[in-house]
Amino acid sequence: MTARDFAPRLAQALAKVGPVCAGIDPHPALLSAWGLDDDGPGLERFGLTMVEAAQGVAAAVKPQAALFERRGLPGMVALASVLRAAREADLLAILDVKRGDIGSTMAAYAEAYLGPRDAGQDAEDVLDFVADAITVSPFLGFESLAPAIDRATQCGRGIFVLALTSNPSGREVQHALRPDGRSVAAAICDAAAEHNRGRHPMGPVGLVVGATVERGVAEAGLNLDNLNGPILAPGFGSQGAGAAEIRAVFGAARGRVVVPSSRGLSVHGPDPTRVRAAIVRMRAELTG
Amino acid sequence: MTARDFAPRLAQALAKVGPVCAGIDPHPALLSAWGLDDDGPGLERFGLTMVEAAQGVAAAVKPQAALFERRGLPGMVALASVLRAAREADLLAILDVKRGDIGSTMAAYAEAYLGPRDAGQDAEDVLDFVADAITVSPFLGFESLAPAIDRATQCGRGIFVLALTSNPSGREVQHALRPDGRSVAAAICDAAAEHNRGRHPMGPVGLVVGATVERGVAEAGLNLDNLNGPILAPGFGSQGAGAAEIRAVFGAARGRVVVPSSRGLSVHGPDPTRVRAAIVRMRAELTG
Repeated sequence: MTARDFAPRLAQALAKVGPVCAGIDPHPALLSAWGLDDDGPGLERFGLTMVEAAQGVAAAVKPQAALFERRGLPGMVALASVLRAAREADLLAILDVKRGDIGSTMAAYAEAYLGPRDAGQDAEDVLDFVADAITVSPFLGFESLAPAIDRATQCGRGIFVLALTSNPSGREVQHALRPDGRSVAAAICDAAAEHNRGRHPMGPVGLVVGATVERGVAEAGLNLDNLNGPILAPGFGSQGAGAAEIRAVFGAARGRVVVPSSRGLSVHGPDPTRVRAAIVRMRAELTG
Repeated sequence: MTARDFAPRLAQALAKVGPVCAGIDPHPALLSAWGLDDDGPGLERFGLTMVEAAQGVAAAVKPQAALFERRGLPGMVALASVLRAAREADLLAILDVKRGDIGSTMAAYAEAYLGPRDAGQDAEDVLDFVADAITVSPFLGFESLAPAIDRATQCGRGIFVLALTSNPSGREVQHALRPDGRSVAAAICDAAAEHNRGRHPMGPVGLVVGATVERGVAEAGLNLDNLNGPILAPGFGSQGAGAAEIRAVFGAARGRVVVPSSRGLSVHGPDPTRVRAAIVRMRAELTG
């Protein structure tokens, strides 16, 4: 692990610029409010503006792949451009793709989004969709994610494994009990902790845990204090979580929590200085 | 529902041309064996050849998105070209993307892959990545997939929900028990059946169930006889399942089973007539 790796860079960003992660979710209504067309150039302009606003005040940006994929090839061109801009701005990019498959197919996703070049290479050598970290989905079991963990480790990148979400139907799967008595979510947390053990300042295997799960962490039996990895915690603002909820849900682990906000920030655009001011306010609310 | 909708078209294809689904998985080793470069034009040539080979002898083709995504933008151009070729060949395309998210993000994936145009429109009006059906992942709960089910219903397309897979670690999540005593997989099957009830010849909400799960269907308590939807059953050939295993696993539901094979077919390329002959042999083995 080098200082250019995702985990130490994120740890430094959290300590230095705070926990805000600027979501880049180009929804049609937001594009329209910004005076942009819902097409490739519109998505690109939206994303580049968010990168500009986030530089130096947010720990990371988080483009939502689905919002780019929905515009077909021009959307993917825009996504590649936004990822490139983040790299050039030296801003960590967590690409929210929630991929999950097995074997050589999972390895292909890992290659697409986490490799093959290492983080120290020139930006021009990096494949179009490579980010510093991605979200992944463990419906096929935690071990199905091994190719992504291997690739992240090898290329100095990171992953955030879906574990406990705050949508009501997530509970059906994530709180279900395995024969060993642990919930699905708790077992994912334990497996991630196993990979991160002994890594300093933390390991590359993060979790996605909703900031609005309330007592869900205790009910599902997650041992987040033991994770030694980053936590991506959606739900701030419009979905109801504030600084108090984040303290309550994450306790001692809250120093490793990355708090994304999308609409709550981008609604202040298209002027990047106004979006930037919203990021600074959110940061003050979270750290004050 | 019209005769151009996915479910009736698939039912007709299964009855008329049999259960084979030609997987399109352009792995580097296969591309090399075909004398193709591992780049956009190589992936496109591989995919177009598989479409040509499958026309009239396979029920569908199944491009694996990960294998295209791994080549960045040129890979996505190739994917769009392969999907367009399948439409023009009047061959059903099941795009294996395993997407899963919530709310407006899931709706964006549905728009990307299932809409917005209906299946009767000219191919030129269809967005780049739209297929006749996609695979989806229910880690965020079955209800999180509602936007995809709605979109599939509205646009005459289909989905296959991951339910029970044969990789060892899949069991950890899919066999886990909910408070109502059902396994995660059984509850997904029941929820899909609910959506398909009363549809003729079957509904648009299919499942992914591994052909090599053996007693897994009974152990997890899946009521496949009640599904009234299609089943995508990976695991034929190199992974160990033959006609006998498919009869044993799916029983009375086997008339709605789509059997994908990727490497087992494409290893016979690059000559499409040889791949076609392999599809015909596989079909004979499955239906003989």
